[in-house]
Amino acid sequence: MTTTTGRPASTPVRPPVRALAPHPDRLLPADTGLRDLARSIYQQVSGAPIYSPHGHVDAAVLAENRPFGNPAELLITPDHYVTRLIHAYGVGLDQLGVNTPDADPREIWRLFCSHWHVFAGTVVRYWFESELSEVFGLTVQPSAETADDLYDQLSEQLARPDFRPRELFDRFNIAVLATTDDPASDLSAHQLLAADPDFTGTAVPTFRADRYMTPNVPGWKGFLEELAAAADIDTGSYAGLVEALRNRRAYFKQNGGTATDSGTADAYAIPLPDAEAERIHRAALGGSVAPDEVVAYRRNLLYQLAAMSAEDGLVMQLHADVVRNYDQASFAAYGPDTGHDLPGPATFTAGLRQVLNDFGRSDTFRIVLFTTDETSFSQQIAPLAGFYPSVYVGAPWWFIDTPAAISRFRAAATDSAGFGKTSGFIDDTRAYCSIPARHDMSRRLDAGFLAGLVATHQLGEDEAYEIAGDLAGSVPVNTFRLEKYVRS
Amino acid sequence: MTTTTGRPASTPVRPPVRALAPHPDRLLPADTGLRDLARSIYQQVSGAPIYSPHGHVDAAVLAENRPFGNPAELLITPDHYVTRLIHAYGVGLDQLGVNTPDADPREIWRLFCSHWHVFAGTVVRYWFESELSEVFGLTVQPSAETADDLYDQLSEQLARPDFRPRELFDRFNIAVLATTDDPASDLSAHQLLAADPDFTGTAVPTFRADRYMTPNVPGWKGFLEELAAAADIDTGSYAGLVEALRNRRAYFKQNGGTATDSGTADAYAIPLPDAEAERIHRAALGGSVAPDEVVAYRRNLLYQLAAMSAEDGLVMQLHADVVRNYDQASFAAYGPDTGHDLPGPATFTAGLRQVLNDFGRSDTFRIVLFTTDETSFSQQIAPLAGFYPSVYVGAPWWFIDTPAAISRFRAAATDSAGFGKTSGFIDDTRAYCSIPARHDMSRRLDAGFLAGLVATHQLGEDEAYEIAGDLAGSVPVNTFRLEKYVRS
Amino acid sequence: MTTTTGRPASTPVRPPVRALAPHPDRLLPADTGLRDLARSIYQQVSGAPIYSPHGHVDAAVLAENRPFGNPAELLITPDHYVTRLIHAYGVGLDQLGVNTPDADPREIWRLFCSHWHVFAGTVVRYWFESELSEVFGLTVQPSAETADDLYDQLSEQLARPDFRPRELFDRFNIAVLATTDDPASDLSAHQLLAADPDFTGTAVPTFRADRYMTPNVPGWKGFLEELAAAADIDTGSYAGLVEALRNRRAYFKQNGGTATDSGTADAYAIPLPDAEAERIHRAALGGSVAPDEVVAYRRNLLYQLAAMSAEDGLVMQLHADVVRNYDQASFAAYGPDTGHDLPGPATFTAGLRQVLNDFGRSDTFRIVLFTTDETSFSQQIAPLAGFYPSVYVGAPWWFIDTPAAISRFRAAATDSAGFGKTSGFIDDTRAYCSIPARHDMSRRLDAGFLAGLVATHQLGEDEAYEIAGDLAGSVPVNTFRLEKYVRS
Repeated sequence: MTTTTGRPASTPVRPPVRALAPHPDRLLPADTGLRDLARSIYQQVSGAPIYSPHGHVDAAVLAENRPFGNPAELLITPDHYVTRLIHAYGVGLDQLGVNTPDADPREIWRLFCSHWHVFAGTVVRYWFESELSEVFGLTVQPSAETADDLYDQLSEQLARPDFRPRELFDRFNIAVLATTDDPASDLSAHQLLAADPDFTGTAVPTFRADRYMTPNVPGWKGFLEELAAAADIDTGSYAGLVEALRNRRAYFKQNGGTATDSGTADAYAIPLPDAEAERIHRAALGGSVAPDEVVAYRRNLLYQLAAMSAEDGLVMQLHADVVRNYDQASFAAYGPDTGHDLPGPATFTAGLRQVLNDFGRSDTFRIVLFTTDETSFSQQIAPLAGFYPSVYVGAPWWFIDTPAAISRFRAAATDSAGFGKTSGFIDDTRAYCSIPARHDMSRRLDAGFLAGLVATHQLGEDEAYEIAGDLAGSVPVNTFRLEKYVRS
Repeated sequence: MTTTTGRPASTPVRPPVRALAPHPDRLLPADTGLRDLARSIYQQVSGAPIYSPHGHVDAAVLAENRPFGNPAELLITPDHYVTRLIHAYGVGLDQLGVNTPDADPREIWRLFCSHWHVFAGTVVRYWFESELSEVFGLTVQPSAETADDLYDQLSEQLARPDFRPRELFDRFNIAVLATTDDPASDLSAHQLLAADPDFTGTAVPTFRADRYMTPNVPGWKGFLEELAAAADIDTGSYAGLVEALRNRRAYFKQNGGTATDSGTADAYAIPLPDAEAERIHRAALGGSVAPDEVVAYRRNLLYQLAAMSAEDGLVMQLHADVVRNYDQASFAAYGPDTGHDLPGPATFTAGLRQVLNDFGRSDTFRIVLFTTDETSFSQQIAPLAGFYPSVYVGAPWWFIDTPAAISRFRAAATDSAGFGKTSGFIDDTRAYCSIPARHDMSRRLDAGFLAGLVATHQLGEDEAYEIAGDLAGSVPVNTFRLEKYVRS
Repeated sequence: MTTTTGRPASTPVRPPVRALAPHPDRLLPADTGLRDLARSIYQQVSGAPIYSPHGHVDAAVLAENRPFGNPAELLITPDHYVTRLIHAYGVGLDQLGVNTPDADPREIWRLFCSHWHVFAGTVVRYWFESELSEVFGLTVQPSAETADDLYDQLSEQLARPDFRPRELFDRFNIAVLATTDDPASDLSAHQLLAADPDFTGTAVPTFRADRYMTPNVPGWKGFLEELAAAADIDTGSYAGLVEALRNRRAYFKQNGGTATDSGTADAYAIPLPDAEAERIHRAALGGSVAPDEVVAYRRNLLYQLAAMSAEDGLVMQLHADVVRNYDQASFAAYGPDTGHDLPGPATFTAGLRQVLNDFGRSDTFRIVLFTTDETSFSQQIAPLAGFYPSVYVGAPWWFIDTPAAISRFRAAATDSAGFGKTSGFIDDTRAYCSIPARHDMSRRLDAGFLAGLVATHQLGEDEAYEIAGDLAGSVPVNTFRLEKYVRS
């Protein structure tokens, strides 16, 4: 038996079963006066359609509309937010099914439930409470005692037709869902969905060229070949790679895409002379590229992607400054995205100077900056977005996508840049069934923030309602150029 | 028609005219109990005279006392806080009159009014509400619909005698206004004011030698010549420059100045051997100075300015760590101070070590540190001010001179350094008519902060009243050595 | 006469004597609803035994149990939190008795009392209020007027048997007190205490090897000789030093120690080849070690200490990133730890990568990270602790060990890492009589934070009570492996 914090128990008595009943006022301000206004603002937007302009749901899931698998496969194993914290209490990632296909899903679920208490106070706990209650109708909290019952209930539901991906898509009231896709993808799933009269929502692809940008990663040559095949353009030269990327951007745009994404080790985007880029490209193909050349190559390509955005108007998302695959042994055993990527210091102001000098005042170019370094909201991102028409403040990302941090973000960004240059909420999730809970969290927090401005007489009450509506609707639509997908 | 956030409207209905009526309790805490105490503390200081120890109002404006120009020229075009955010929505700086003398002021005002909604939640909106209501008596908020009426009302008022600079100075209850002046200035406007029995306020010059410090800026040689003429000392040598600066500091002091100001790319102040400084000086005059020599030269001069402050007791203000003229095309078209200066990371602890080791415990030396990097309050500035008698925590500067950031500053600085080593509020503004609104904002926020300490029993109620009074009065007076200007 | 902030008085009237009566609800949330719940949570833990797993009380004080000296010697002179802020108002450290044995203690106390007002709003004021009231029963606040009376009252009490160290230990309800000890210490005081049936508490040593790690500090060779004598191992070689440290760790463990501590200029821990470490060791003994070799030597030893922790299971505390002895003249006159150590930027993620890759997932290894850079809670420490089983988030250290900063810490760390990977409160103090006030502060703040989570429906009320109990008990016990010292 363990305590709430996961330590050896200091008190032996503990109720085995706690009710799962998310409060209708959760996350609204504690102060009664503020709460009443916040609730009213929230209620106005709580049912608004969801625009999800960045995330990691696979379009094929919707196109095929097969029932989801077991609870562990759906809710635990692929979600590194969940697995990393259980791992932090000494549980191996293999025990949680990561890169371990033969792990018993019920055992994984039991491990999750017996660690439920370690999530107390975290956003993962918050999302799960909403999701398990509102999507799956569970009524008791996970625990060692309740694990099996919950597993059975979830399994039963997941087998039902109304729990298939498309049915949930409708139930979640998703207006637009952006996926994340490799440039070599044929986007066939998107095409199937677009052609399917039964699918009334919108799923748009997002062009993410990361794997071509660091020419010393294993498999880089093969990636180039896949891209060449998709574009029917030889990528054996740097010029060819750039041309193939341009070609595929157009293809993504034809297939409904409005944005790209880049996830890079830093935000530096510095053009190289073509000959130098060409030289490094050839050296990399030859297998002999130096670390500083890899960096220069990547930073040049980031600049080229910005230049292409200034041409084709695809909105450039930049998720920068993350230390990837920090733990080499975990990476070797479990692969990427398994919980040991870590925040690095933000480098936007210094890194993007050339890009913004060249394209920052262009009407076509647009860039949304996402950070894991919250000091950059008041110190880099809001100041940039408050001058450059092209720059938008991305919603708090990874590690800071939590109630407390989102509130700090609004306070840090709004007073210099206002609301209209922020991106709207981004769920950025692999956890499909958590999408409504995440957007709902954001709407609650924005309602509370707006209520605070009204209560301190910095904003009129009518404006607060209007801005809340904008933040859920016109703000993400405008930022990500989704106007054509707005339901009338 | 646009929404509150400046996005395409999601709802077509919107009231065309909103009342402009700043609430008497604005910015006071939302919690009722706290608010009552905060209001009471605020009311005690709300009418206290204003000490404005750092700003950018031109003394000639007061000396000549000519009526202000049109509303755009007074309120919009020169205020980069305003123009930058409108620019961020795609409006050219030229359309706002920046470096564009023939722009139609009414059109500029219309652009401002039609973008009023994008300021929702920002401090610019907050200042304008107070200023337009309390200084100009406007009763409706700016909007496309109200723009022309408001322009006419403002124009009419600006033509009236009681809206001339000196009449406003009295009405604003300004006790001391510090200007910012080049060392070559003859300070004739200050002398006129000092000699004028009709001017009962005080306007003191502040010595700002920035343009001499970076020897590769265009015009540097000419600046040296102007300084030489003013001081009657040859500045063709580094020794001469230092001597001329020392000479002019004495002149500023004779003319009532109590402080200097430096705005530098970083806070490093590192002495060079005289021969090396001399060598770079000559190289720069010869037009062949290397970038690292420019940096070394500037850092040496910052050290020399500190050494002179330790001699003459002029309070050294340091506004460090800003990336100036980030957007080269905007700089070329519109000049400096046009909205694209950006915050850099604070460098006080590392940069000032030599200065503080040499002068930090001196009775004469005093330095006030201003930052745009709010992490430095708890991590650099308060720790330095909590040890060195000479170091004071400058009020939050640029980008963080907002209600939310000022509240964060008080929380971050007070619990380790207390109140008495903070500088008092600094408006640092070119916007003359916003001075009362800015100081009033600070008094409201301090009242709220103090009320919070009382409510959590960290401070006695009587002390809170006393400290509020000090923060508006004796604190800036002491920090900037303004004792002789205090009205009896 | 001075004002509350220490400035020349703006108002002449001031009550000479203020009551000292800490409010029972101090630091609890101002909001009435929140406060009621917070009070209830607090009351449940307010009387719990104190686990103090890191501090600077000398075990000999307890072993000898001699009465404390005069009030200045006990409360003022050794506490650099106190002396630094009085110094910041122009009082010499010598006047406060620092390194000045013949200073008159009553004069020191008078200086403290006449500067009492400068502590308004600081945590030092907060601690003193609790301590002077609850430990010493004083009923009026220090001031110039009350100084002598208070001095007499304190002196009288300090002479009484019930104010001796052990009697206070019992009265403070300290379960475990960890001291900080040099590896060369014979731990005789700890042995006396362990063997003494009259001492029912626990005092455990902590192994702190800092003085061996930077081979250019004056006296390094002598330190090595002391260590060699203690371990009976020749430390003339690097291998010998490592072996001696390993030997002494075992000795500390035998004497009840469960942890080590390191205070380093940064968090980099990078192994050197043995031959290179050996070469630098010999060079340093020869007196000719280069600055970069000193750094490499220190970073290697930090890695070796981590490796030893992975072997012997002593919990590694890391207090990194402080600029020591910033003011050279003060260091020369007064020695180390005299108020001019300053925070540096945190370097955990980058610095510890090798250590965490090698030992981070080990069951034996454990590391607790302490910072003075609060941005690192959400950006480095919580993300590391949320993945690595071995990493724990140290409670806010130095400069951020204040009510406001501790509240920010909880908000910044909890939503991604939860409660169970935080360390529990650490008082880290030389000020023995402030220990209860400090732990009590933490319990109040945690109660308020938990009440906020309950009020916003992020946590159940029953969980909040449970977690509050854990944070005061099982959390520090588990983090520092103190299980065997828990009173049944």
